[in-house]
Amino acid sequence: MSAPRTNLPVDPARIAAVIDGLADITEPGRPYTRRAFSALFPDGRAFLAERFRAAGLETRIDAAGNLIGRRPGRVPGLGTIMLGSHSDTVPDGGRFDGIAGVAAALEVARALADRGTELEHDLEVVDFLAEEVSIFGVSCIGSRGMAGVLPEEWLARESGGLTLGEGIRQAGGDPARIASEPRSDIAAFLELHIEQGPVLEEEKFDIGVVTAIAGITRIEIVVDGRADHAGTTPMAGRADALAAAARLVTGVEALAKSFSGGKFHFTATVGEFSIEPNAANVVPSRARLLIDARAEERAMMELFANSLDQMAEQIARETGTAIATPRRISDNPPTPADPMLLAVLERACDTAGASNRRMASGAGHDTAWMARATRAAMIFVPCREGRSHAPEEFAENDDIALGAAVLLQAVVQLDGELQEVNQEAG
Amino acid sequence: MSAPRTNLPVDPARIAAVIDGLADITEPGRPYTRRAFSALFPDGRAFLAERFRAAGLETRIDAAGNLIGRRPGRVPGLGTIMLGSHSDTVPDGGRFDGIAGVAAALEVARALADRGTELEHDLEVVDFLAEEVSIFGVSCIGSRGMAGVLPEEWLARESGGLTLGEGIRQAGGDPARIASEPRSDIAAFLELHIEQGPVLEEEKFDIGVVTAIAGITRIEIVVDGRADHAGTTPMAGRADALAAAARLVTGVEALAKSFSGGKFHFTATVGEFSIEPNAANVVPSRARLLIDARAEERAMMELFANSLDQMAEQIARETGTAIATPRRISDNPPTPADPMLLAVLERACDTAGASNRRMASGAGHDTAWMARATRAAMIFVPCREGRSHAPEEFAENDDIALGAAVLLQAVVQLDGELQEVNQEAG
Repeated sequence: MSAPRTNLPVDPARIAAVIDGLADITEPGRPYTRRAFSALFPDGRAFLAERFRAAGLETRIDAAGNLIGRRPGRVPGLGTIMLGSHSDTVPDGGRFDGIAGVAAALEVARALADRGTELEHDLEVVDFLAEEVSIFGVSCIGSRGMAGVLPEEWLARESGGLTLGEGIRQAGGDPARIASEPRSDIAAFLELHIEQGPVLEEEKFDIGVVTAIAGITRIEIVVDGRADHAGTTPMAGRADALAAAARLVTGVEALAKSFSGGKFHFTATVGEFSIEPNAANVVPSRARLLIDARAEERAMMELFANSLDQMAEQIARETGTAIATPRRISDNPPTPADPMLLAVLERACDTAGASNRRMASGAGHDTAWMARATRAAMIFVPCREGRSHAPEEFAENDDIALGAAVLLQAVVQLDGELQEVNQEAG
Repeated sequence: MSAPRTNLPVDPARIAAVIDGLADITEPGRPYTRRAFSALFPDGRAFLAERFRAAGLETRIDAAGNLIGRRPGRVPGLGTIMLGSHSDTVPDGGRFDGIAGVAAALEVARALADRGTELEHDLEVVDFLAEEVSIFGVSCIGSRGMAGVLPEEWLARESGGLTLGEGIRQAGGDPARIASEPRSDIAAFLELHIEQGPVLEEEKFDIGVVTAIAGITRIEIVVDGRADHAGTTPMAGRADALAAAARLVTGVEALAKSFSGGKFHFTATVGEFSIEPNAANVVPSRARLLIDARAEERAMMELFANSLDQMAEQIARETGTAIATPRRISDNPPTPADPMLLAVLERACDTAGASNRRMASGAGHDTAWMARATRAAMIFVPCREGRSHAPEEFAENDDIALGAAVLLQAVVQLDGELQEVNQEAG
């Protein structure tokens, strides 16, 4: 992004060394793949734990399998300021997604140590377990566990002969203790992450201060038509499920475009689409769509879902197909950032000399789960062309380092302000 | 359709007995499945051969694996009038598709024998091998073979350890002899088939006299977009392959509707459709469509294909995707019926008291291949709601019997007229 900065309070080379070191720990011939619960994942964890310890952090793995490095503060019992992200990847995934955040968090701890800065609060650096959708089909295991909201029945989920509970145990956790050890000591949580979108790069901002993590609603639509012989059935007498589903796709896109581009983040994508019988000479009898809709404002999601219901009814009428009422497969509300942390982060950007804009996160993050347990907020750094979850994913190390400097400023500010806020509250 | 007729020159009960007998020879619990090259197919063939022989026909299997029953005519060397269709089914297929035509052809031979009618020409009843798309991915093996147009390289096609050549041999054929034994003695070929469409039933006609078998062109379109994160990529900056492909589906349907409903048969169907990566949270990067277009008039197919090319260009421009020029995977021209046979069939309908209309066949048939070798034409009988290639496929036995009576009249007429025509030509 910007030209290298020479006066940063953090060491860019140390950040790069962590990111590059993890990049080397990948499935052979398949950059960059280090999935949670895979045989390779513990190697990445061992690499990180070694760096945590070398930075003077008391290093452990908690009940939910999160790797944590601790730097005690001057005032015992004052609470913990936590920084971090995740080191697991998607298959054929990127070098920076999550990893940049862990490396930046570690660098904050090192920079504080270098400067001899003692915080009042304890500081913790965390590598959450299994943020990406893993072999168990669910995401954000570690942050859900730490926040006390990991559904207990998930522990029995099984994949390839392994249960999630066993997977957590293999990662060094203790699934039986997750529910009984909620963290009440965390005073604030901050995460740095690559944007995974094109906005900061296009608009030439150093930092995105995340106002909210969009709610994600997944909506399934099934269209039932009638299988007919493609050659002998006149065009006028058909109930073509694909023709109806194509109108739905076009309609979803038009609706999403009309909702987006304004003040609030909104996207809707038909990511999964299939037809039956999917045979060259048969009019499609069935189509299934899965819509991924994301909204910064809950009201927009409701409006979208209602419009979709009406659209489906109309298309069914016009095409002679039957379309069941669109069904919400999952539905998570948006997570607004903590307003105090938002203000601290913006001031930290100014102090660090980082140009910044507010923006919502369209992607889910560990921060959304940590927000269930404490004040939480996050910042984005730019990435190239918005590419993510792909080998081409790329972020400039200097951009990440500038982000780490922002985190460092924020931590120093918070160390003082959290006390004031809590005293006022008390 | 119509009320049972009591004065038919054929025996409806004998036709029903053949159709029902074959229906009993089906994979257990999977009506009605008797695919070519399956373990069950020879049982159906044995049943038919027994009925052929009981009708006094000289019964054999030719080099291409077709079951043929022969009734010699009074004038050796005058040529053969051939009637028939096929007894193989699709998986979970119907009781009447092809089978009705074999049963009707056999009944014509029996009715002639009952009446003591001697023809000048030889008469042959044929059950073509493997009209349906078989495990080898191709169709109309027997009729292509008999007409001398079976691609020799197809014999090496392999499925489950069996080659097509070996399959033909197991059916009693001799693949090495197919190419060297073209039939030059066939003076005319007629086929009865169920319509596999809804027109005769809806318009209450007894018989469809088939003017042409539509040409079938299969066109593949591949749309290349860009895989982006569904949550973080603004709606405005996407190249969504599914959104573009949906417009193509809608466009194909609109174009086909504008071409259909007039004098000439035209359909176009997107039967195969898939996207990549087909993941809930990724903007689709690629879509593939396979269009099945069928036209009675070649000029309409060319116009359709040209319009499609232009449509694809425009949609690519508007959606920011790349769409390669639509590619013709296969391209068979329409097969017009022989005009003399058409006139004979219409007169035969009048003689038999069968209401009739001209119509094109949207489906492919053995007749299209036999037309490469001789005069060929076909008639349709009604079927219920146009259902075909499904267990619900149904045709009234009286409708089939009336069709058999039309065939019988046509054979008697042809026996005289073919000589005149050939004498004129000679």
